[in-house]
Amino acid sequence: MTERDLRTAEATMLRPRVRIGETITLDPGKIDLLKHVESTRSISAAARALGMSYKHAWLLIDSLNQGFGRPVVTTATGGKGGGGAALTELGRQLVEHYGAIEARLNVNAQTELQALRRLAG
Amino acid sequence: MTERDLRTAEATMLRPRVRIGETITLDPGKIDLLKHVESTRSISAAARALGMSYKHAWLLIDSLNQGFGRPVVTTATGGKGGGGAALTELGRQLVEHYGAIEARLNVNAQTELQALRRLAG
Repeated sequence: MTERDLRTAEATMLRPRVRIGETITLDPGKIDLLKHVESTRSISAAARALGMSYKHAWLLIDSLNQGFGRPVVTTATGGKGGGGAALTELGRQLVEHYGAIEARLNVNAQTELQALRRLAG
Repeated sequence: MTERDLRTAEATMLRPRVRIGETITLDPGKIDLLKHVESTRSISAAARALGMSYKHAWLLIDSLNQGFGRPVVTTATGGKGGGGAALTELGRQLVEHYGAIEARLNVNAQTELQALRRLAG
């Protein structure tokens, strides 16, 4: 089973919430939002896809911007095709490290995850 | 470093959210609530300690009861000292398995956690 297979099969099982220092929390909601910003090139389209308001999406993104002291998303306005949003290098690195943690954890926690599944009968 | 040391030092770094089947989610909030019910012997005291309403605490507990099809907390009324709440065997096992997952993950994800800490400068 490749890492990609595992991510597909198990990512819904265990998702990490990572605290970094005192002020930053990376959780599944923020990471999914960043991924959708990357794929849709739009904060409002990403928010819509996740069933949240633009304002809530922006607050989640801004909490990361503030926490890291630099932006995780860039927005461009004007030019051909209107505006556009994209992840910064920092934003991409967060998604990448989070994905690596998530994939690894789902492999390593198989024993306990199976025990929990058995409890659910 | 013992597992207990690691749990103390790192538990705030990475906390899992575990999906079990289609309907159950174990997250840090529910697990902390169960732990506080166990230590305070009271749902309302546990809710107060975590800054949530009794109703919210009860809905979290009931979501687990419904998901597993049997209770994670028992409540007794009357008798000496009035009522009292306690974890069922199922509730205790959830706290235990979750704790084992959490402790293990924080050890196994050290490399990625350090990379994330470096991003925060």
